[in-house]
Amino acid sequence: MSLTCVGSIAFDAVKTPFGERERMLGGAATHFALAASFFDTVHVVGPVGDDFGDAEFATLRTRGTVTDDVEQVAGGKTFFWKGVYSENLNQRETLVTDLNVFETFEPKLSQASRDCDVLFLANIQPDLQLGVREQCQGAKFVAMDSMDLWINIAHESLVKVIQAVDCVILNDEELEMLTGAPNLFQAAHAVLEMGPTAVVAKQGKYGAALYTKDGFFALPAYPLREVADPTGAGDSFAGGFVGYIASKGGEVTHDDLVRAMVHGTAVASYNVEEFGTERVARLTRDEVDARVADLQRMTSFSV
Amino acid sequence: MSLTCVGSIAFDAVKTPFGERERMLGGAATHFALAASFFDTVHVVGPVGDDFGDAEFATLRTRGTVTDDVEQVAGGKTFFWKGVYSENLNQRETLVTDLNVFETFEPKLSQASRDCDVLFLANIQPDLQLGVREQCQGAKFVAMDSMDLWINIAHESLVKVIQAVDCVILNDEELEMLTGAPNLFQAAHAVLEMGPTAVVAKQGKYGAALYTKDGFFALPAYPLREVADPTGAGDSFAGGFVGYIASKGGEVTHDDLVRAMVHGTAVASYNVEEFGTERVARLTRDEVDARVADLQRMTSFSV
Repeated sequence: MSLTCVGSIAFDAVKTPFGERERMLGGAATHFALAASFFDTVHVVGPVGDDFGDAEFATLRTRGTVTDDVEQVAGGKTFFWKGVYSENLNQRETLVTDLNVFETFEPKLSQASRDCDVLFLANIQPDLQLGVREQCQGAKFVAMDSMDLWINIAHESLVKVIQAVDCVILNDEELEMLTGAPNLFQAAHAVLEMGPTAVVAKQGKYGAALYTKDGFFALPAYPLREVADPTGAGDSFAGGFVGYIASKGGEVTHDDLVRAMVHGTAVASYNVEEFGTERVARLTRDEVDARVADLQRMTSFSV
Repeated sequence: MSLTCVGSIAFDAVKTPFGERERMLGGAATHFALAASFFDTVHVVGPVGDDFGDAEFATLRTRGTVTDDVEQVAGGKTFFWKGVYSENLNQRETLVTDLNVFETFEPKLSQASRDCDVLFLANIQPDLQLGVREQCQGAKFVAMDSMDLWINIAHESLVKVIQAVDCVILNDEELEMLTGAPNLFQAAHAVLEMGPTAVVAKQGKYGAALYTKDGFFALPAYPLREVADPTGAGDSFAGGFVGYIASKGGEVTHDDLVRAMVHGTAVASYNVEEFGTERVARLTRDEVDARVADLQRMTSFSV
C-alpha cells in the first residue's frame, strides 16, 4: 500500500537533564516518516524554509521516504521549537515557538500523495486536515492526531475531521478534554460514536490503550533504564502504528490494530533513547522486531 | 498456606462525584483481607474502638477471615478518615484524619498469626512493621506497603523493613521518592538491590508493573465505564496479589508473581465499582476469574 503523511517539519532545540541540542531535525511529520518507513514507502507533505539543507533532506529520505511534496518556501525559515524538560521528564516547558513557513502552510498534494491507500493527518489546524482528507478520497485507512490548542479554539472543525477518519490517536488527557467525559473509557467510546472505528490513547511513560467496537487492548511502554529525550515519542508511535497498518493489505481488524500498537510502541521506545531523530535514523527492522518480541514476553501470561 | 496481615482498620467518610458515604468500613487491612480471602485464610491484626460493632466484625470475617487478633480497645474510638475526590478522581483531599486507637497501636500477634507462611505488612510506622517481621520468623514470603510520610520522616527505618521483606508494593511516585531515581526502572532496580526479590509499582488507573531479577511485567488496569470510589484500590490489589501467592505452595517464581498481578488487578477493579467494601464483600471467585480471563484477552497478541 502507499502511505501519505501531512504535518510539521521543524528544527528543535531541546534541553533535558541528560543533554541538549541547539538545532536538530524534528517535527511531527519527520518523526512519523522515520518510524513508518520500516513498513512502507512514505510520502511526506509539509513546508520547510531556505535553511533546510541537504543533510536534513537526506535524513527525511531514510529508508525510501519520498519528499517530492516537501515544499521549500523561498525566503522562508523552517518551523522552530525550543523546549526544556523537567528533571524526571514528566513536564516540559515551551520556550520558543516560531511557526515561520508553517504559519501560512496550505498542504499541496501531488497526485502520488493523493493516491495513497493510508493517510496520516499529523497535528495541524483541523480545517487543513479536512482539506487533505477530502483530497485523498481513495484512502482506505485514515488516522489523525491533534492537540489541546485545536480542542479549545477549533472544536467544531476538529469534530468534522474526526467524523471523516478511521482512527484517532490522542493523549488520554486530550480525549477527556475533547469529549468532557470523566474518564478514558467514556471518552474513547464517545469518540467511537463520532465515527472512527479505532481510538488510541497515548499515555506517555505508561504506554497506550486501544478502543475499538470489538474490544480493548493496552500495552505498557517498553521499560528503559535511560530516556534521553521524549520529543517525538508520540509521532514515532503513530508512525510505527500507521506504518504497520499500511504494510498489511485488506480490511483492518482489531487484531491488526493490536499488532500496530506493539510495533508503534517498539519504534517509540528507541526514539526516546537519544535526541531527536538520532536513534531511529539508524535503527534496523531487526531491532524493532526484537523489542516486539520482548513486549510479547513482558505482557503475556498463563492462568 | 496461612496468611497474616497487619494494618489499619478504619471508618471512612468519602465523597466522590458519584456519591458519598458518611461512615463506612475501611482501612488497609480491611480491604486487603476482603480481597485476599478468596485465596486463603487471612489472619487480621489491627486495632479498633468500642464503636466497632458486630456488623463490621461480620464484614471483616467474610470468607473465613480470622479476627482473633483484632484488638478492641476499651474506651477507644476506631481510626477515622474523611476525604473528597476531584471530578475525574485523579486527586483526593484529606479532610480529617483521627488516628484514635491507631495512634498507640502496638501489634500483638497470637501464635496463630505468628505462624503464618505469608505475611503482609500494610502501611504502618516502619519500626512496627519491622517488629512484626521479626515475630514471623517462619514466613516464606513477606510483602509490604508504605507511604510518602514514612519515606520522608522515617527513611532509615523504612529501608530496614525493605531489607527484611521479599516484595515491596508501592506507588511509582513513592518508589522514585524513596530512591531518588529519575524514573521507575531505576527506582525499582534500586529497591531490588536492597534485598527484595520483587518490586510492584502501583500506577493507579494505568495499572501496575512488576520488576524482579528475572524480568519485567506490566498490566493495565481493567477498563471500567464507571468508577464510584477509588478508596482501597491499592489495598485490594495487594490482597489479591499476596493472597494468590499464599494460595500457591513452594517457591515463588516470576511467573507466580505475574499471575498474582493479574488476580490483584481483577479484585481491585471490582473494589472501585462501589463504595468502600460494598462490592468486594459480595464478590464471588467466579467473578474474579472472569476478569482474569478478560485481562488475558485484553493484553495478549500474536505477532
